[in-house]
Amino acid sequence: MTERFFLGLDFGGTKLAVGLVDGADGQVLARAQQPTPPAGADASIDAVVAMAQRVWLAADVEPGRVAGAGISFGGPVDAAHGVVLLSHHAPGWEHMPLTRVLGERLGLPTCLDNDANVQALGEARCGAGRGARVVLYLTVSTGIGGGIVVDGRIYRGAHGLAGEIGHTIVQPNGPVCTCGKRGCLESVAAGPAIARAAARALVEAPGQGAILRELLTRDREAEERANRGEEGRGEERHGEYLQAVAERPEKGVALRQRAAAGEPLTAALVFEAARAGDALANRVVDEAIGWLAIGIANAVNVVDPDIVVLGGGVSRAGERLFSPLRAAIAGMCAPADPAAVRLEPAALGDDVGIVGAASLFG
Amino acid sequence: MTERFFLGLDFGGTKLAVGLVDGADGQVLARAQQPTPPAGADASIDAVVAMAQRVWLAADVEPGRVAGAGISFGGPVDAAHGVVLLSHHAPGWEHMPLTRVLGERLGLPTCLDNDANVQALGEARCGAGRGARVVLYLTVSTGIGGGIVVDGRIYRGAHGLAGEIGHTIVQPNGPVCTCGKRGCLESVAAGPAIARAAARALVEAPGQGAILRELLTRDREAEERANRGEEGRGEERHGEYLQAVAERPEKGVALRQRAAAGEPLTAALVFEAARAGDALANRVVDEAIGWLAIGIANAVNVVDPDIVVLGGGVSRAGERLFSPLRAAIAGMCAPADPAAVRLEPAALGDDVGIVGAASLFG
Repeated sequence: MTERFFLGLDFGGTKLAVGLVDGADGQVLARAQQPTPPAGADASIDAVVAMAQRVWLAADVEPGRVAGAGISFGGPVDAAHGVVLLSHHAPGWEHMPLTRVLGERLGLPTCLDNDANVQALGEARCGAGRGARVVLYLTVSTGIGGGIVVDGRIYRGAHGLAGEIGHTIVQPNGPVCTCGKRGCLESVAAGPAIARAAARALVEAPGQGAILRELLTRDREAEERANRGEEGRGEERHGEYLQAVAERPEKGVALRQRAAAGEPLTAALVFEAARAGDALANRVVDEAIGWLAIGIANAVNVVDPDIVVLGGGVSRAGERLFSPLRAAIAGMCAPADPAAVRLEPAALGDDVGIVGAASLFG
Repeated sequence: MTERFFLGLDFGGTKLAVGLVDGADGQVLARAQQPTPPAGADASIDAVVAMAQRVWLAADVEPGRVAGAGISFGGPVDAAHGVVLLSHHAPGWEHMPLTRVLGERLGLPTCLDNDANVQALGEARCGAGRGARVVLYLTVSTGIGGGIVVDGRIYRGAHGLAGEIGHTIVQPNGPVCTCGKRGCLESVAAGPAIARAAARALVEAPGQGAILRELLTRDREAEERANRGEEGRGEERHGEYLQAVAERPEKGVALRQRAAAGEPLTAALVFEAARAGDALANRVVDEAIGWLAIGIANAVNVVDPDIVVLGGGVSRAGERLFSPLRAAIAGMCAPADPAAVRLEPAALGDDVGIVGAASLFG
């Protein structure tokens, strides 16, 4: 059989990405990306079409061997009809027949799914889940999305809503989630939830979290230097900062106020402080991992996957996340052999959207 | 095509049942049942074989038109190999190759699955889930089991462990479950959990639960009469008993002690008292419904079924259970249209095991 290639088109809330992907093995021959234009749907579509044309040229593949364009959309879609329902990030997407529009612009067959399903498919076919029959995928970043792939195909459920693990309830009467319910996994374990919990802890415990406070200061100062046109972060001497935070309580106050506003704190910073030995950050991280374990274990007990693949920004925290998370999940799952529940980080990195989208034709 | 018939063989922890089932529509032509003999596996197998022969004769179907025997087993099985792993109720079942044993005894092709999966299949094919593409089934009785049927086939997951909804965690740090974890749905919403919660409430609130105390007394007195050879329950006059409980505090003490032991209280009695207006019983019922709603909604958000079918003893509580449960689940699920999540009582009653087992060949 002649080798076939597919365009993978990834419409994210902050980033648009396009790649030309080898249908046989998911290798990306050429890629392009840019920030999502704030103007809305038409500007994003124009940008993606232009990137697709550049990528196609760059990959130097004959037109006839590109067999289709798969589309990942960061928001609710009607996959069966190839229609975007709406975007939570930009105007103009309501009921957009995106497969038809892009099919006409690119002259290719097209198909579409939401980003979590597409990422799940990409990881199942070409990433960490390769070879597994049932893959449960979670992306933990600003939200928590999920997807289920069975025998190489996305399991969509009755209404295209399967895999909504982020909105399973793990803490009854917990914090209010973006969806309006209380105690959803997303409300206690996504990136912003970890940052909020750390900010609250810093405010409530003025004497604690020295390393986290220091990282925050370093971050802010690096940003200020960058704004002044100086060099970026560079290496800071931790001891000095600890000293400064300890000696200048007024600095602590400002930090606590900024932390309370939630702005400068990120989950990545909290994990960094935890790895550096900050007790407060470690408590916050451990609590989020506890919730994540319940949410994942509950889904595992329903879906019984061969492997759980964890992607998204928070999953980049590495072993400080994965090691305790594996242990906690093993204690909450049915299989007699805890090794039966594998938990692995996503393997495709930033390419997951374009590889997954290209896989929609497989 | 010639009509085909199947034997459905149901090995339960308390009851064995056999039926001859029409493969076209799930109608039961003849049935038999008896208590499960305590002696163990061999006695149960002998009893089921004898019942199968009686049922086959009674149904008056030519031997050649019975195409197979489907087996439901109340415990963990290896469905792919037709082997029972163990029984939590009786000895002798460890690694029993039940499909081979019964195949030889009955001279028929056989297949096997666990009771929750079999019941799910029966309800999906011939019961409340008929016509739905994705069916999520729960049985709520002494435990909580679950099964998922997609396109008329049992979804088993990677290790045959899918649908373990009873052991999803709904109350972190809740009561210890039979599985050893804390706060599993089964530990807070199965029949014994409802009875335990009511017993605890009776002990803690001596002035409350008059109707429930009365029902308990009536139940005990009816039992005592039955033990003395007198007639069974009969109709009791509620007012008199309320009076008696109010006037004789020593009776209340004895009841509380017995209630604390957990023995005489059942979930059915708690629901009966709740329907009769007992405030304490209503609180207990509402709390159990709250946990059940979380467990079901979480599974719905992962599986996205067309319908949730609720079976098992507790499901016979009727609208006092279903009406608030539907309302609570609708508020916890993703579909914009709450009507999209249907929750219905199981339709096959005591036949669910034999009809489901016969459906294993479909």
